[in-house]
Amino acid sequence: MSQRVCISLDAMGGDHGPTTVVPGAALARERHPGTTFLMFGDEAVIAPLVAKEPRLKDCVEIRHTSVAVAMDDKPSQAVRQGRGKSSMWQAIQAVRDGQADACVSAGNTGALMAMSKICLKTMSGIERPAIACLWPTVRGESVVLDVGATIGTDAEHLVEMAVMGSAMARIVFDLDRPTVGLLNVGTEEMKGNEAVKEAARILREMESPGLTYHGFVEGTDLGRGTVDVVVTEGFTGNIALKTAEGTAKQIGTYLRAAMTRTLAAKIGALFARQAFKALKDKMNPSRANGGVFLGLEGIVIKSHGSENAQGFAAAIDLAHDMARHDMIRTIREMLDQTAALAPA
Amino acid sequence: MSQRVCISLDAMGGDHGPTTVVPGAALARERHPGTTFLMFGDEAVIAPLVAKEPRLKDCVEIRHTSVAVAMDDKPSQAVRQGRGKSSMWQAIQAVRDGQADACVSAGNTGALMAMSKICLKTMSGIERPAIACLWPTVRGESVVLDVGATIGTDAEHLVEMAVMGSAMARIVFDLDRPTVGLLNVGTEEMKGNEAVKEAARILREMESPGLTYHGFVEGTDLGRGTVDVVVTEGFTGNIALKTAEGTAKQIGTYLRAAMTRTLAAKIGALFARQAFKALKDKMNPSRANGGVFLGLEGIVIKSHGSENAQGFAAAIDLAHDMARHDMIRTIREMLDQTAALAPA
Repeated sequence: MSQRVCISLDAMGGDHGPTTVVPGAALARERHPGTTFLMFGDEAVIAPLVAKEPRLKDCVEIRHTSVAVAMDDKPSQAVRQGRGKSSMWQAIQAVRDGQADACVSAGNTGALMAMSKICLKTMSGIERPAIACLWPTVRGESVVLDVGATIGTDAEHLVEMAVMGSAMARIVFDLDRPTVGLLNVGTEEMKGNEAVKEAARILREMESPGLTYHGFVEGTDLGRGTVDVVVTEGFTGNIALKTAEGTAKQIGTYLRAAMTRTLAAKIGALFARQAFKALKDKMNPSRANGGVFLGLEGIVIKSHGSENAQGFAAAIDLAHDMARHDMIRTIREMLDQTAALAPA
Repeated sequence: MSQRVCISLDAMGGDHGPTTVVPGAALARERHPGTTFLMFGDEAVIAPLVAKEPRLKDCVEIRHTSVAVAMDDKPSQAVRQGRGKSSMWQAIQAVRDGQADACVSAGNTGALMAMSKICLKTMSGIERPAIACLWPTVRGESVVLDVGATIGTDAEHLVEMAVMGSAMARIVFDLDRPTVGLLNVGTEEMKGNEAVKEAARILREMESPGLTYHGFVEGTDLGRGTVDVVVTEGFTGNIALKTAEGTAKQIGTYLRAAMTRTLAAKIGALFARQAFKALKDKMNPSRANGGVFLGLEGIVIKSHGSENAQGFAAAIDLAHDMARHDMIRTIREMLDQTAALAPA
């Protein structure tokens, strides 16, 4: 990988397509001046938007595609219609072909995962990729996975995810041995289903030099930031993530109602408006936008479909970080290490 | 059942035992003047506390027990040591023997469930009981189950829970046909594991007169109050519940920090203190404290172990509501109806 990071963008993905992707790239470019972009999509739409962005001068190459994956396409349908020719596929393929160091798309998650698996292939030793996200906590952030790539799990898959999540945490948080917890319904050893109990045994016995196994954690530990990496099965992880998002919105609604109910409250809100702005930024999921696909032979980041340019830029930041620190190599090294350490 | 509701209390349960249970009963008595209590536990501790509460005059009968289940006892151990003679067992047995209409305990959840199953038995047609809670939403409250009684599920169990949760919602929310959603990772029909897909098919086809099947709901729908009853497997439900609790605490921490950072914010907080108090009450889980055990031949309510008197009183309120409206009969009628309607 060159020092100059190149990121391929599916410019047609997400609810807003190029009108979010292009200004998002401009925002990210400001923070990472060396970066170049390959933008895949409708050139007639993308080119004028890029021309309007002085921050994107001389760092964007547009590659025209005429097929775009729709947000509600089934993955199988998207692959059938978009394989080889859609903006999403070509953005992924640029990573496979070594033209880009990472790919970012705000498109349909199922389609992006299906295409990534076909185009990039999963890493040797990994059965199923996972989606990791950065979860805001009172102590900073944690890596949480799987937030919805696969439904159902077994102990081996949970251990793989612990290793891959730790590799990501080492890069993003700059840690030697991130702490890892398995999400469970209690912290006692006897709690949980067979998969988490067995995964706990393996992680405890393997004593990996790349991670510190903490033990079981509960739902309350997510916001608390008890560990750097939280591992769980995709069904539960997806529901936990959306429950947290929903709860944050719900409390925002309560807060707005409380601050407009009386004159005193309105005056208070006026005085505290900077504090509320800071709070709103803190609660804003755009700040930590981006699902990282782990377990593939290449870096693919999924941005939320409904994000604005700021959110899309956060996903590019993440891609940039992963590429610059060669996440794929880190994961591969840790997986090799684990294979040597894992108990029978 | 008499009009005068009698509630049996495990006075030794929870982190604080009688010092929370007795004032909690007093608070609840104020709201339900006809209620009487059977308190099981250490008479030497309970009697002076009751004597100090004028609101409990002539409505409490103390029954001495010398064995108390510890918060960290394993269920099997608790049953072995506490069967027949512990305050928890006797409080449940009072329901079985028709001396009380409902039982409330803040003790060890696993032990309470194990003892309830042995002592009260599960209802005919129900394989595994569930724990339901009242989830605060922006529209009011929803019934959510299972929040941790059993790990793993199948379609039949999810359908049973939909029926039992609806029976509870009919009573608590005074509705004829509560809306029911199955918690899933997306709302499209193809999403999820086999159990939720099959349960969706059964609920759709059965057209029960006691509930309206809404479809799949996601984690974000919990706080939104999209449906009256949300059904999910116990592992996921427990993690969703604790994730929401953790997120609420996390935002509370952010808010406190934001409101003390600058002088203007502090002045704002002063003006808005009534509004913040209202918000805190809204975010206070004590208001909706109480896990309802569904699927047993008797009403058992689990209060959080760490609750204060106000929280314990909320659990008693719930027990009172369930008893007064004969929840067991409502569930039985709905289960019979369902058995007649369920597709092959």
